[in-house]
This record gives sequence, C-alpha cells and structure tokens, in this order.
Amino acid sequence: MNRLDWNALDNAARRAALARPAQSRAETLRNGVEQIIARVRADGDQALRELSARYDRCTLDVIEVSSQEIDEAEARLAPTLKAAIDEAAARIEAFHRVAAPQPVALDTARGVRVERVLRAINRVGLYVPAGSAPLPSTALMLGVPARIAGCTEVVLCSPARADGRCDEAVLYAARITGVHKVFKLGGAQAIAAMAYGTESVPKCDKLFGPGNAWVTEAKLQVSADPDGAAIDMPAGPSEVLVIADDKANATFVAADLLSQAEHGPDSQVILLSPSPTLLDAVEAEVERQCALLPRADIARQALSQSRLIAVSSLAQAVEVSNRYAPEHLIVQAEQPRDLLDAVTSAGSVFLGAWTPESVGDYCSGSNHVLPTYGYARSYSGVSVASFQKQITVQELSPAGLREIGPCTATLAAAEQLEAHRRAVTLRLAALETAA
Amino acid sequence: MNRLDWNALDNAARRAALARPAQSRAETLRNGVEQIIARVRADGDQALRELSARYDRCTLDVIEVSSQEIDEAEARLAPTLKAAIDEAAARIEAFHRVAAPQPVALDTARGVRVERVLRAINRVGLYVPAGSAPLPSTALMLGVPARIAGCTEVVLCSPARADGRCDEAVLYAARITGVHKVFKLGGAQAIAAMAYGTESVPKCDKLFGPGNAWVTEAKLQVSADPDGAAIDMPAGPSEVLVIADDKANATFVAADLLSQAEHGPDSQVILLSPSPTLLDAVEAEVERQCALLPRADIARQALSQSRLIAVSSLAQAVEVSNRYAPEHLIVQAEQPRDLLDAVTSAGSVFLGAWTPESVGDYCSGSNHVLPTYGYARSYSGVSVASFQKQITVQELSPAGLREIGPCTATLAAAEQLEAHRRAVTLRLAALETAA
Ligand SMILES: [Zn+2]
Ligand SMILES: [Zn+2]
Repeated sequence: MNRLDWNALDNAARRAALARPAQSRAETLRNGVEQIIARVRADGDQALRELSARYDRCTLDVIEVSSQEIDEAEARLAPTLKAAIDEAAARIEAFHRVAAPQPVALDTARGVRVERVLRAINRVGLYVPAGSAPLPSTALMLGVPARIAGCTEVVLCSPARADGRCDEAVLYAARITGVHKVFKLGGAQAIAAMAYGTESVPKCDKLFGPGNAWVTEAKLQVSADPDGAAIDMPAGPSEVLVIADDKANATFVAADLLSQAEHGPDSQVILLSPSPTLLDAVEAEVERQCALLPRADIARQALSQSRLIAVSSLAQAVEVSNRYAPEHLIVQAEQPRDLLDAVTSAGSVFLGAWTPESVGDYCSGSNHVLPTYGYARSYSGVSVASFQKQITVQELSPAGLREIGPCTATLAAAEQLEAHRRAVTLRLAALETAA
Repeated sequence: MNRLDWNALDNAARRAALARPAQSRAETLRNGVEQIIARVRADGDQALRELSARYDRCTLDVIEVSSQEIDEAEARLAPTLKAAIDEAAARIEAFHRVAAPQPVALDTARGVRVERVLRAINRVGLYVPAGSAPLPSTALMLGVPARIAGCTEVVLCSPARADGRCDEAVLYAARITGVHKVFKLGGAQAIAAMAYGTESVPKCDKLFGPGNAWVTEAKLQVSADPDGAAIDMPAGPSEVLVIADDKANATFVAADLLSQAEHGPDSQVILLSPSPTLLDAVEAEVERQCALLPRADIARQALSQSRLIAVSSLAQAVEVSNRYAPEHLIVQAEQPRDLLDAVTSAGSVFLGAWTPESVGDYCSGSNHVLPTYGYARSYSGVSVASFQKQITVQELSPAGLREIGPCTATLAAAEQLEAHRRAVTLRLAALETAA
C-alpha cells in the first residue's frame, strides 16, 4: 500500500494520488463488440446461440428461462438464502418507494395549470453478471425499482453456467421482483439483444446494470445509437474512500478496505486520515486480514494500487474526497454526521463504525448501482427515477392565456419567431371577438 | 404536406410514417469537431480567439463578458422585453422550485437510518445559441434550475455578434438567474472550453443546452470522455405532434404546426386526427398562414416533411403518439385531459385550445429543454434534478447492525465475497465481546 502525505504533495502529485487507472477502450475490444452487435442485429437468436456456445461454453436450445426452471430454482434454493433475499428485497422496496419522485401540480398564474406527471419507461433491460460469482443482489437492485416504477416489460439477462442453467438465487430474485422475462445471455451479446431485440428477446428502451469490459463497451456503443437503447450510467471499476479519525477501529477500517479490494484487481481503495497512528494500524491490519481471504490474490492486486493518505484534518479529508468523488464513502469518525454537509460528491455514504459498506451492497435499502470513476461528480446512483420519465403538462383556460399570452408574445418577437407569437395573438384575438 | 391513413398502412409504412430524418454524424463533422476540441485543449484561450475570429467573425480581446457590459446591456434593453424576461423567470422559478427533488429519510429497520440527500453539481456550463436569433428564453430555462439547485459555478457561453457583443436580452437573463460567468463563445469551441477549461473558462462537470450540429457533435464527444463533461441529453431536431378532434379549431392547430415548422427546415410536424374534415381545414389554414410568416421558407421546408395522419379514434391517436414519443404533444380535443393518462412518452404536453406550444417555450413555467428524436421514450426534460446529484446515506447503530448484519452476511457468502461477509461478522463479534 502506498503511503502519501497530502500536504507534502504539489498539484501534479495530488492529481496523481487521486488518479483512476486509465480505461482502455482498446481497438480490439471496440471492434470485437461491434462485430458481436452486428451479428446479433443480423441473425437474432441464431447469433445468440452461437455466441453463447463460443463465449459462455453453453448450448442453448431455448434462450428464455422457463417458469418451470424458475420453480425448480426456487425449490433448490437454501431456505436461509431465500429468506435473506426476501428480507433484502423488502428493505430495498421500502426505501425506494419513499424516495420515488412524486407528481407535482401548480398554478403558475390564474388559469395556468402546470404539472409534472411520471411515466414508467416501458421496456427496460437488466443485466446481472455472473462472472466470478452470480449476483442476486444486483437482480434485486434493478428489479425492485423497475417494479415500483411500473415498467410494462422488464427483461433480465444473466449468463448461464456450463450446465445451461442460470443461478438459482438470481432466478428467485428475478421472480420476486416481478421481472417478466429472463434470458440465459451474458456479455456483449446480451446487451445487443436487449438494445435491438431478436425473435426471443424484446427490444428495450433503457439498459441497466454492471458488467465486464465487454458489457461496458457494448452499453456505450448501443447508447450512442439513436436506434439502440439508453443506459443507466457510464461504468468504471468499483472504488471506496474511507475517512477515519484517531478514534476509528483499525480492524473495521481494514475490513472495509478489503471488502472493496476483493471486488477485482482494478478496484480502487483510498484511506484518508489525520492520524499517522491509525494509518500504521490499518496497514498492519490489512496485511493480517488479507491473508485470511479466499480472494487474497485479487485483493492484493487491488491493494498494490491503493493509497493511505495523511491529511491535516477531517475537513481536509472531505475536501480531498470531494475532489476524488468516490463511489462509496465511509466515514469512521467520532462524529461522522458532522462531516456530511460538506460532502458534495459521492455515490453512497456510510456513517460510523457500525455501518460497513457491505450493508449498502445488500440490504440497508439503498441502491448499490452507483457512479464510479469520478462520475459521482455529475451522476447519481440508480433509483426509481432511473426507470421513469418526468413529463410536464400545461393547461390554460382563456383567462390563463390572457394572463401569460402577452409575455409569451413579447419573448417570441424578441427571438424573431413570428409563428410562435401568432399562435398566441390569434387566440387572444378570437377571445376578444367572442367577448 | 403528406396525407396518410394510419389504418391503411402496413407495418413498414407505419414505421416510415413516424421515421425521423436520419442524423448524419458525417465524417467531416466528426473530424472537424475533434480538431477544434484538440486545439482548445492544447492552446486554451489563444485557440478560442482564433476559432472565434474564423467562425463567428468577431475579434475577442477579452473572452469573458464584463459586468460593465452587462450593465450596458441592461440599460439598452427595451422595458417591455425586460419585464417579460422578469415575468417568465418568476414563473419558471415557481414551478421548478415546487418540482425540485426533496431529501428523504427512512428507518428501514430498527437502528438502520437510510437517507437520500441532494447536492448541486458544482460547476455547470450552459450553452445559449444565437444562430438565426438570440435565445434569452434558453438562458432562463437553464439558469433558473441551476440557481435553485445551488450550483457553485454557473458558466454561460453564447456567441458574440460581429460587433463583439452578446445579445442584451441573453445577458440580462444570465444576470437575473445568477449566472457567475458569461463568455462570448459559440459552437464546438464553446463546448470544448467548458468541458476541459482554459485560462479564462472554468472546467465544468456537466453541460446543458441546445445547439447546431457542431455543438451537438461536440457535446457527444466530450461526454464520451471521462475527462470531459456529462451532458443534459442527446439532441435532435425539434418536433411537435398534434392530436385534434373534429371540434378543434383549425386556425389554432395550423398556427401550432407552423410555430414548430419555423424552428428549422429539419423540424418535424405531425397531425393526427380521426376527422378528415379537420385535416382538410388545417391543411388549407397552414397554406394561408404560412404565407404571412417572415420565416415562410424555413417553415415550408419543414412542412414538406410533415404528415397529416388520419386515425380511427383519439385513443388510436395516443397510441401512435406514444410510438413516436414527441418532444411536444398538443392535444386539441373537447376533453383533452381524458387522454392524458394514456400518454406514456412525450417531452411536454399541451392540453386544450388555449394552450399553444409557445407558452411552454417561454413562460408557463415548465422547461423547454426537452428530449427530441424519440428520446422521450427514456429521457426527461431538464429540471432542477438535472443540476443535482442524489447521494444515499446510511447510518447504523449497533442494534441496527445486529438487525441487518446476518442478512448481509448470508448474501455476501452466496456471492462468494468473503471480505464483505467478514466486515459484518467481525463487527458483530466485537459487539458480542463488548456485551
Ligand atoms: Zn462491495
Ligand atoms: Zn417552439
């Protein structure tokens, strides 16, 4: 782990200290994904079968998961895991319902009613990876808000195992969140299928979910095409930034850093503290705990890129954090809430010693699909709003048009849009005549 | 204008009837914009001066508009126009305030507090075109929500006239909405300057506003670069779809179609009606009114691509409209509100005979920066939320961790993320020891 002192760094060194790994959109990846998308658009299901055989090493006669397969999955699922999925879904649902946008109506002048109504995005596609392990939690994080929004067609793709089946827990999570169709598809071909549609897979308006480099590149490509599909947000490697004071528990801090590091070799892990003692203690604890992990190799790779940074104060720590704009921000300080007002850019914040980041990944109720790679400067995590459109509505009475028509006409004239002006004045003239 | 009968069309003909003009991202445009961006990144203000001289034919010693220039603009502004800008700003502000997202807090379990807090995107860049005419209304539509959101640095770029000054009304609108810095910049160079920063222009986190093909292409390019800036939404030509019944006033309908057509030769104009008589009457009225317009040439080009489509019922009209997903939807029917529930995709809706689309462009209070080109299927118009991030926060007490820790641990184990599980279990163990 790299130890740095923020106040000893010049500007270039500070930039380097907070730099993310460069995202390579390698030519071979771009072209490979382009070819997969073109194949799926040209040959539909047949292309999906061939690509799944090649990349996922599984033979698909039927691409869609049958309800019988989901029944079987549910029956095979361990009762404790089933109960945990139910429990997590309930809290995710409770929070997302409360945080969902509400319709609004206001008379902005006498006779001028202005509203905002909410409409679900009709057809949405959810991607649930199963690379190193299946991720039922991601199925919950996408399926629950899609159902609350009221999307009329919710499609989920997740790669099948070599035995031709999808993970039981993922299928169960899809079922209880009301996903309409599940397909045994992974990688760029899954994204292409949902963006353009095939004989089996419905064309979707917007795609959601994390994925590997192929999935990410495919989402980028289909979102740049007006005939493709919108996407939830740009993606990058997952990351955590921890702010800890001298009272923080080094064992807990180390555990949180490691739970980020085990996500992947490109995970970013940063610790900021005004306490050199704490930095020392965490460094030792990370070493000790890392040895106990089955994914120690992955974690060690991530940690080799990690940074322990000494800062002059907690206030400075928050400044540095805002500059970095982490996906996850953990504050292990005596009065963690005191720092919250100053936090301007982060995906999700975890306050205090008893709030490990893993609770947000699974079941506190917040969403775990969050902006990474500095996108937290301008993007928010997934929520019910991500599955909706907000449509404005206006309705004027004759009195309303008399009220705001002249203002409209003046501005239209200033912008040299005569037909805009006339659309108002000929109506006002009609009202005069009628009066 | 093209007359069609929806129920006489096969599927291919229906698709063609609702097709948008293909958006050419011509190689020359792409390369030209790439070069402009590269020049601005390399040479900063010097590049901006040279590019402005070449493309806007104006010589800029100082790129930023001084407060003295804004004082002078305000003094020169016609009092009626000034009053109209004030009036419009007040209604836009009233509606956007009411429609702004609110913070949320919920205990999802005993001792588990989950919140959503709102933070302004720090630095935002607003683009206000001045091609065929200056657009002070766009300055209002972007400046008002940016101020409500509380963005700490609001930058506005608008091209100067050949005399080296920006439009008076645009400057006044920028001043009253609290824009912090205004620059005399247009085109791709303005977008590049705000996305990457120069000596004069601050680097912005997100860019907003309409523009010509160069601006649109530049926004696409900078938004695809993680070091660039996010953008409000993808862009396309402006469009209106009108649904009218046999009681509709053909003069009003024609005026609304023309106020869309005058926006530009690539504007899209569609009328749906179950009444052949109304379609006839509107066709004649469009001819008559078009002749009276200063922009008759532009409108005629747009109208040559327009479609009058006979449908079997108002319900079918709404179905067709949803399929098209118009930026502006006008409903001129006896009971327009009866159709609203069935509208699933549109940018903004105008109900009834006394609600011309121009009121939404200027001063009903809703925003006029709306999704075009079918993006209304998955995107919403600009609002206060567009200038904010929603950050989730969680804080657990020891009791809270006891409550949801086991569920977290079970799910982490299922996903083979041992460090995630341990971040919970070692805290629970610490609580046991302490108890
Ligand atoms: Zn995690
Ligand atoms: Zn208009």
